[in-house]
Amino acid sequence: MYRAKIFVKRRKSILDPQGKAAEQGAKLLGFNNISKVRIDKSIEFFINTEDYNLAQKESDEFCKKLLANPIMEDYELVLEKFR
Amino acid sequence: MYRAKIFVKRRKSILDPQGKAAEQGAKLLGFNNISKVRIDKSIEFFINTEDYNLAQKESDEFCKKLLANPIMEDYELVLEKFR
Repeated sequence: MYRAKIFVKRRKSILDPQGKAAEQGAKLLGFNNISKVRIDKSIEFFINTEDYNLAQKESDEFCKKLLANPIMEDYELVLEKFR
Repeated sequence: MYRAKIFVKRRKSILDPQGKAAEQGAKLLGFNNISKVRIDKSIEFFINTEDYNLAQKESDEFCKKLLANPIMEDYELVLEKFR
């Protein structure tokens, strides 16, 4: 069994409205030192196989097909053995 | 200047409908080994101060007041010096 951790991030050039809203919220709450808020996704799941290459291949395809939007987002995939 | 990285996670006992949907998507796409998908938030921002304690205090309050819902979510805060 492997555990996959994925960090999906919008490209720097793509606007992040959710982050922008949080930044304005920070200003309203009086946190004047806070800037450049970005809100991204972190995803975790398990892959029920002992074969590292298969786990890698499946999680990568899962990211490409469903979790990340390849036009706007980049992702980072970390696999760790889980028992 | 410090960079804050926050990982906001729902408590294990709280349902994660977005993760559930991604899990069903995985099944439909034929990824039968994938289970327990959780989708959480990862947040990044900058704090314009050289005082570590102030940076810590401000990011912590920002999390409590705006970024995380203390009833359903836990968060982890990592601060790193940025230049």
